[in-house]
Amino acid sequence: MTLPTIGFVGVGRMGFNMALRLHDCKYPITAVYDIDSETAQKLAEQTGATACSDLKSVTRLADIVFTVVTDDAAMRHIFYNEADNLLMEAEGKTFINCATLSPSIHEDLQNACHDAGAQSLEACMASSIPQARQGTLYLMVGGTQIVFTAIKELLECLSQSLRFVGPAGSASQVKALVNMVMNINTAALAEGLGLGQAMGLDLKMLREVFAQTGANSRVLETDAEDMVTREHDCYFSSEHAAKDTGIALTLADQAGIKLPLAKATFEQYEKLKSLGLGQLDKSAVAELTFPGRAGSSKD
Amino acid sequence: MTLPTIGFVGVGRMGFNMALRLHDCKYPITAVYDIDSETAQKLAEQTGATACSDLKSVTRLADIVFTVVTDDAAMRHIFYNEADNLLMEAEGKTFINCATLSPSIHEDLQNACHDAGAQSLEACMASSIPQARQGTLYLMVGGTQIVFTAIKELLECLSQSLRFVGPAGSASQVKALVNMVMNINTAALAEGLGLGQAMGLDLKMLREVFAQTGANSRVLETDAEDMVTREHDCYFSSEHAAKDTGIALTLADQAGIKLPLAKATFEQYEKLKSLGLGQLDKSAVAELTFPGRAGSSKD
Repeated sequence: MTLPTIGFVGVGRMGFNMALRLHDCKYPITAVYDIDSETAQKLAEQTGATACSDLKSVTRLADIVFTVVTDDAAMRHIFYNEADNLLMEAEGKTFINCATLSPSIHEDLQNACHDAGAQSLEACMASSIPQARQGTLYLMVGGTQIVFTAIKELLECLSQSLRFVGPAGSASQVKALVNMVMNINTAALAEGLGLGQAMGLDLKMLREVFAQTGANSRVLETDAEDMVTREHDCYFSSEHAAKDTGIALTLADQAGIKLPLAKATFEQYEKLKSLGLGQLDKSAVAELTFPGRAGSSKD
Repeated sequence: MTLPTIGFVGVGRMGFNMALRLHDCKYPITAVYDIDSETAQKLAEQTGATACSDLKSVTRLADIVFTVVTDDAAMRHIFYNEADNLLMEAEGKTFINCATLSPSIHEDLQNACHDAGAQSLEACMASSIPQARQGTLYLMVGGTQIVFTAIKELLECLSQSLRFVGPAGSASQVKALVNMVMNINTAALAEGLGLGQAMGLDLKMLREVFAQTGANSRVLETDAEDMVTREHDCYFSSEHAAKDTGIALTLADQAGIKLPLAKATFEQYEKLKSLGLGQLDKSAVAELTFPGRAGSSKD
């Protein structure tokens, strides 16, 4: 059986590593595109793909196109920009959209793909770069079962935990909720450790007690040490934390639900951005809660 | 070796069950006191203790007195009330103070005990009623190593996880932080599930995804189902959640640290109290975030 050819649009660290993983799995990577043409060129060299200078060439050169872009605006641009977009001559093609976006985008896109004779699937990732590289992403899929079944084998190369969630948009909804709760728990942990430091407690002891009690959480495992040592190399940026929490707040507004903790968390990550720290990992929220650190002294 | 005699002051559900556990372990329970004399009488009957009508009798009848009271004010009353208090004729006695209190209370009390020829220890519990009954409490101890060593065997009857944290007051500091982070994570989970419900997502699926991702937490295990089914039988009341989060906020104020998430959580639990729901379990914070529930429609 011939494997389908694969294109990538948006090759930030996630997209780059997903492409390398699919390359390892022998899928022919045939076309890559990024607004940063150097990055696209680098990935093209490592995979034997063509670095495309326009979007419609990606669709032409690949059977299945992964999109891993930054936000709603970028997503609209690559699919709807009049001069050049992925839906030009897209008949028979499949788009797998991996960015965390407002859920309604996926619904609209499914319709637009249908009109172009193409098909689409949302594949939301709740993991980070090492998992992308190793093919152990946690992938939540939204769309139609038919499309899902058709490309399941491909997705299994990227994911050990593949979960069909529901119609187009629902995976983004779940992803927004996962990230919202994760970001709140992260900001909460930063408050607990920051106050512990302010009171002169042994933070190693405090982390152990947290781990053994009702304060335990996944982010305690992933972020606590980084908060203490101020190691904020980026796995999931504070900018993304602000964006995703903002998506959840918009959904809550639409549903008439008040989320005061999500709001407080959004404001913390916006504050980090305003301090020029938005590129740091989400653990950097501790810079706002530990005594004596830059963010804690400013209002 | 003769086991020391034990008194209990404050026999709410925690104190009651701790006393039963020590009774199982063959410690002679000799004196109990509660402002609710019926409860004290009931415990006295089950353990063969005397139900005392004044505090100083508890001290007279027991070598070691556990105090498990509600708050700072109750604690000051039992130790400093002029007409009748536990420190009258307290020479040689030991007080083990289990309530979650402002840390400074424990420091003051250690000094007052010293002046009375007695000794004290704080023993903060980060567990609930079943653990009290079974002797599997998570106990964090603050005070002097000498007193801790002297009564370690007794405490081991109540706890499988006994941890000496530091000087008087430090266990309360750690406990305040544990509960603060736990309460924030609880309120966060209520927001995630509430918004999920509002968007029509399958909450069973959502909880599974939370458990497998960065949204995972101990409170997801303990509180998520109760939030969905509105089963708010009290293990840890919303009133207590408000109180403990308030203690943490006061400590943060004193330390000059801003904790916006703790503040938002405090306000949620205060809102529950104002709706007359303070006696419900902390999981009841979901009543404020699920669509169509009483608390979600009021400001």
